[in-house]
Amino acid sequence: MRVKHKPWAKEKLLSHPEVCVNNPEDFKGHWSNVFGNDNPIHIEIGSGKGQFISGMAKQHPDVNYIGIEVVESVLVVALDKVLQAGVSNARLLSVDGANLLDYFEPAEVGRIYLNFSDPWPKKRHTKRRLTSPQFLDLYHTLLGEKGEIHFKTDNRGLFEYSLVAFSAYGLNLKEVSLNLHEDEMEGNVMTEYEEKFSQKGFPIYRLEASFQ
Amino acid sequence: MRVKHKPWAKEKLLSHPEVCVNNPEDFKGHWSNVFGNDNPIHIEIGSGKGQFISGMAKQHPDVNYIGIEVVESVLVVALDKVLQAGVSNARLLSVDGANLLDYFEPAEVGRIYLNFSDPWPKKRHTKRRLTSPQFLDLYHTLLGEKGEIHFKTDNRGLFEYSLVAFSAYGLNLKEVSLNLHEDEMEGNVMTEYEEKFSQKGFPIYRLEASFQ
Ligand SMILES: C[S@@+](CC[C@H](N)C(=O)[O-])C[C@H]1O[C@@H](n2cnc3c(N)ncnc32)[C@H](O)[C@@H]1O
Ligand SMILES: C[S@@+](CC[C@H](N)C(=O)[O-])C[C@H]1O[C@@H](n2cnc3c(N)ncnc32)[C@H](O)[C@@H]1O
Repeated sequence: MRVKHKPWAKEKLLSHPEVCVNNPEDFKGHWSNVFGNDNPIHIEIGSGKGQFISGMAKQHPDVNYIGIEVVESVLVVALDKVLQAGVSNARLLSVDGANLLDYFEPAEVGRIYLNFSDPWPKKRHTKRRLTSPQFLDLYHTLLGEKGEIHFKTDNRGLFEYSLVAFSAYGLNLKEVSLNLHEDEMEGNVMTEYEEKFSQKGFPIYRLEASFQ
Repeated sequence: MRVKHKPWAKEKLLSHPEVCVNNPEDFKGHWSNVFGNDNPIHIEIGSGKGQFISGMAKQHPDVNYIGIEVVESVLVVALDKVLQAGVSNARLLSVDGANLLDYFEPAEVGRIYLNFSDPWPKKRHTKRRLTSPQFLDLYHTLLGEKGEIHFKTDNRGLFEYSLVAFSAYGLNLKEVSLNLHEDEMEGNVMTEYEEKFSQKGFPIYRLEASFQ
């Protein structure tokens, strides 16, 4: 995602600790305290400008959402969306998804959303794909046996790669759609990328998978 | 496939025993004898008008091909194609794929091709789909651990169903393409249905899977 560098982003994120959790390592194993309830915790890795996380938080008040986004100039847009949505069950973390074991205990997460993840098409960048075996190991720890991965993308190469990688890892595919917007999935919350690519008429691919 | 009933089909099939094997149960466990060599045996279930099986037989003289097609009026078209191709490594069986254990020993088959299989979209017909758990059980026996299933179709619903069914069965996906003709797969032999649907611009889905 090309975004203008915003030198003021860090300061703005710091000035909203009720949404942007700046010391996430302190809550490892204690995210229920942050939300003040025991509702399940669903995270989105690479949450971008936040339309999905704020929309989901509004639609599902009984779930706690955490958006993970490594680029501050992007996360600051998500902050505005969460504030506008006026929800109390959404938080944002300005961290790299690869380090999530620093911030969550094993099985503390109930669901992981991956939406329009960067495709990293070059073979030598395979490890950076958010559905590589290294990341699947991480998700297995974060989710335990019961949690689910929900993944959508317009990128055919990434989706094909992911189907094979999930299969090799022994993940179970629960749902697959190869053209989400023809299926009119109930309750689907569109991301910024999803709006853009589905408007162009590209098929959106989607899957749900679990480790059991 | 809508085909005109051809009352003369049976007779024509019987008159070409060098291609149409009319007593396949006699060769259970002994298909090498039919071909006169120990080359691997690859079968296509639902081979239709035979363009794939005759094309593959020509392209791969070191593989033995058997086309399985239950409708005689269709199989008779395949017979002409095999005769025209002038190959000695292709046979046709006028039988139902569901009964293949009457004709093959466990692990006697090296690869199963499913091309544009009937979609059976209604839920109550799930069992008839050639990628249902019942058929996967059959394929597991026919192929043993080493053999492979290669499946292509234009039917999105059937492909989605199959991805989930293969995953639930514990099959491993080795290759997936969600738009075969954009990928220009080397050595791809088109079927009659494939020509028709790819000309209309529909994406062709393809996978390779194995039990190990
Ligand atoms: C292509 S954008 C999609 C954004 C949003 N999910 C959407 O669908 O509109 C991918 C986002 O993932 C972020 N990202 C990529 N790798 C990440 C990682 N390892 N940890 C956190 N964020 C990551 C990028 O900074 C970018 O904002
Ligand atoms: C949609 S056509 C596709 C034909 C060909 N594979 C192609 O791609 O052009 C499916 C074919 O499978 C055959 N078929 C369906 N179920 C079968 C079964 N259980 N055993 C053998 N043939 C079957 C049908 O008679 C039909 O000819």
